[in-house]
Amino acid sequence: MVLRNRWYVAALSTEISDRPLARTIACQPIVLYRDTKGAAIALEDRCAHRQAPLSLGEVVGDHIQCGYHGFTFDGDGRCVRVPSQKQVPPNACIRAYPVIEKQGFVHVWTGDPGREDSDRPYDFPFPDRPELHARYASLRGAFDYRLLIDNLMDLTHLGFTHKNTIGSGGVAEQGKTRTERSDNGVRVIRQMENIEPAPAHVEVTGYSGNVDRWQIIDFSPPCHVELQVGNAKTGTGGVDAAPEDRLIDRRTMHIATPETGTTTHYFWVSTYPADSMTPEQEDVIYERTMEVLDEDVRMIEGQQSRLDPSRPFVDVNEDAGQIHTCNLLARLIAEEQSL
Amino acid sequence: MVLRNRWYVAALSTEISDRPLARTIACQPIVLYRDTKGAAIALEDRCAHRQAPLSLGEVVGDHIQCGYHGFTFDGDGRCVRVPSQKQVPPNACIRAYPVIEKQGFVHVWTGDPGREDSDRPYDFPFPDRPELHARYASLRGAFDYRLLIDNLMDLTHLGFTHKNTIGSGGVAEQGKTRTERSDNGVRVIRQMENIEPAPAHVEVTGYSGNVDRWQIIDFSPPCHVELQVGNAKTGTGGVDAAPEDRLIDRRTMHIATPETGTTTHYFWVSTYPADSMTPEQEDVIYERTMEVLDEDVRMIEGQQSRLDPSRPFVDVNEDAGQIHTCNLLARLIAEEQSL
Amino acid sequence: MVLRNRWYVAALSTEISDRPLARTIACQPIVLYRDTKGAAIALEDRCAHRQAPLSLGEVVGDHIQCGYHGFTFDGDGRCVRVPSQKQVPPNACIRAYPVIEKQGFVHVWTGDPGREDSDRPYDFPFPDRPELHARYASLRGAFDYRLLIDNLMDLTHLGFTHKNTIGSGGVAEQGKTRTERSDNGVRVIRQMENIEPAPAHVEVTGYSGNVDRWQIIDFSPPCHVELQVGNAKTGTGGVDAAPEDRLIDRRTMHIATPETGTTTHYFWVSTYPADSMTPEQEDVIYERTMEVLDEDVRMIEGQQSRLDPSRPFVDVNEDAGQIHTCNLLARLIAEEQSL
Repeated sequence: MVLRNRWYVAALSTEISDRPLARTIACQPIVLYRDTKGAAIALEDRCAHRQAPLSLGEVVGDHIQCGYHGFTFDGDGRCVRVPSQKQVPPNACIRAYPVIEKQGFVHVWTGDPGREDSDRPYDFPFPDRPELHARYASLRGAFDYRLLIDNLMDLTHLGFTHKNTIGSGGVAEQGKTRTERSDNGVRVIRQMENIEPAPAHVEVTGYSGNVDRWQIIDFSPPCHVELQVGNAKTGTGGVDAAPEDRLIDRRTMHIATPETGTTTHYFWVSTYPADSMTPEQEDVIYERTMEVLDEDVRMIEGQQSRLDPSRPFVDVNEDAGQIHTCNLLARLIAEEQSL
Repeated sequence: MVLRNRWYVAALSTEISDRPLARTIACQPIVLYRDTKGAAIALEDRCAHRQAPLSLGEVVGDHIQCGYHGFTFDGDGRCVRVPSQKQVPPNACIRAYPVIEKQGFVHVWTGDPGREDSDRPYDFPFPDRPELHARYASLRGAFDYRLLIDNLMDLTHLGFTHKNTIGSGGVAEQGKTRTERSDNGVRVIRQMENIEPAPAHVEVTGYSGNVDRWQIIDFSPPCHVELQVGNAKTGTGGVDAAPEDRLIDRRTMHIATPETGTTTHYFWVSTYPADSMTPEQEDVIYERTMEVLDEDVRMIEGQQSRLDPSRPFVDVNEDAGQIHTCNLLARLIAEEQSL
Repeated sequence: MVLRNRWYVAALSTEISDRPLARTIACQPIVLYRDTKGAAIALEDRCAHRQAPLSLGEVVGDHIQCGYHGFTFDGDGRCVRVPSQKQVPPNACIRAYPVIEKQGFVHVWTGDPGREDSDRPYDFPFPDRPELHARYASLRGAFDYRLLIDNLMDLTHLGFTHKNTIGSGGVAEQGKTRTERSDNGVRVIRQMENIEPAPAHVEVTGYSGNVDRWQIIDFSPPCHVELQVGNAKTGTGGVDAAPEDRLIDRRTMHIATPETGTTTHYFWVSTYPADSMTPEQEDVIYERTMEVLDEDVRMIEGQQSRLDPSRPFVDVNEDAGQIHTCNLLARLIAEEQSL
């Protein structure tokens, strides 16, 4: 159950080069590479001739050459060379997927051909800002992509799934959660006032006094979850505190691109003030965070293995954001299918 | 094809602790742990909230806490805590499986709730006797549980599957086999008189003269096979010989608990006179026996891979016990399904 | 989609000994071994008694003994011994597959019993000739056997799949290809005149001048592809050159025996003049060739993973041989099924 006519992130910018990369997006096998100008190209990963994967071939200039019989395709999916003869059959074409690369992500259009202007790739401007630093990750898990979205919409799991890493006892118990819905998104706002900071935060900031902590979670279809998380010295205004009172202040994108019905690509970027950490601290936090993402992946894979569709979930108040997200996605998919 | 309303062994006592153990019994995912009094608890391994496996969580006092959002369940499957709110939804329950632990095994009731008194866990009193020693094992194989029962009901395989371990040439050729049937069990009695002892037996007993050897095999539904095996100096009475004339005298339980339709948990315990072996000999015999069980598992996995249901088995006289067992089990399953 | 009533190669002669070999041919599990006279025996790999794989047992004299309960079968599949009783049940039989061993290959008949004389095992006489040397290989790949035949019928893949091994730029561009069809075969003839020799060839022959190169490819149903490849000094007659002008002159058999619908045994032999290479050169060429076969296997496995039956292949001129082969095989299979 996937929204068909949407832009999906297929890769990090750093994952694509002049060596072909095979990646399945929404059940479609795609090969990604860069041409001589550095532009990202996304083609069907299946040669028109005998259906060999082009990803087993090689990039030759702006083109990709099949590793089987050498049929060569340009970035529009047109065959430009058949080594054994001069004439190229006019039907020797493969599908080319529109690509938009920005902010460190390669978005592809796997929806109906020609309709790519009906949607825009998700905009996350922070990695481009010079005053911020950004770190990326690309993972994969054996679960339905919607379970990863669920995971992110309810951060009360931090104290449990991540209790040895970023969790702190106060997250689940002390929050006041507000959920806001719109026609095209869901926002969950949790604000925790005058609580002890998480150990990992003290380690980085050196500040062990009480803090006001915030988590603002925005879901945007089809599979983007943007997080603002941070804390400031207690009483300085929380999410509205002046920069000098903010101790932790991060903007993070989580992207749950469906690979197949039960597997998901998990792309991630986090940004933070360039002067907030030493390079060593950045590395420590990044490694810690990779453990956190791995904890999530393993928990959600466990959840997927136990799912029993004949039994309903039991909901509590904190599930409001997740329920709205689930309903919004189901409504949009139903609308798309009824067209 | 499994008898539903029966007690099944889910684990050895030594496998359960205050760390959750995930185990599938008759296709039902179960988490097992001990509470603070040491009592074994068996719960559905699926949180009521979002269906994550509780076995990825942790035991907290007498309860188990989900590793995802911290929902906590008592030994009766009732949710006793939702970290993010005071009120626990009344429907936040999971299935609790009745447990009876005895003689080193943890039996669970996966049948119709409330009917657990209609059956009793299998009684194998020998591990509790002070004059006997006991050794246990817990294995798993990729085959229908009934193939393991078949294996045990026809010990003429000893000379072939186990010819390098416990087999001796005489087992298949020289036995006189008698089969006895009752409404709720099958017994196979094989007595071999005046034969050479198995090499492994000579190694332990130091007695190389001829022996009378016996194998008494009792099947009890749904999946228990109890063995009396031993030998005594020839002419001293066989299975009825006085203790001082018995050279080998073991009582062994084999339990074939269905995990799924094509996988099986294999639990095992063997008891023998405490003074019959040195600790070193006990270790040697145990290691040898683990090789034997492994030989069985590999053979039965091979058999499972070759099964062609369109073709009948070819039966011989020694298959009588196995055929009666198969028929008894089929009849009981049919009776249960017709209720 | 396999021709049923044909001889198939099941193994190399060197793969069969007095230790049982399990091999699935056309979805039928077979055990192969040699009797005391050295004759190759092929039996159903499933004991008549309880369907255990005989390949887990052992060869005893001319017979094979099941490793489970010791039932023993002769080379005709008749049970000759039941260890636990004197009488052998008359229906204790398994299927025996006719075997013809020649030229280093063990051919078996998996078709309708009694019809083995309606076909002859493929004849490839070169390994038996004293003036030639022969080297064999046995591989396996996860693809439909017909994709391997396709691979061989269109050697324009050499310059791409094998560009780092035996490929040379001229193969695809410079050839003149002729295709000949008969009622029971397809021949593709490619002749390349006055081209640079492949680097590997120069390494062996020491001759770096231009050559005339030939590739003659013969497909014979069900799955045999015979290759004549070679080169001679330019202008000396090509494939008809006198022996002293031939630089490279090989006869090679490729056999694509179906294992299951999506897996294939790949048998191979290549012959060449005994005096054309030193033993060290033979070894180098053999190792190089094993890399080449592995390159093919990996490419075809990739192709299999991408096959989309809803989309037609795009054909070019060089596909003529492959298309004729495909059509011939389809016609023969349809004829066989309509009988």
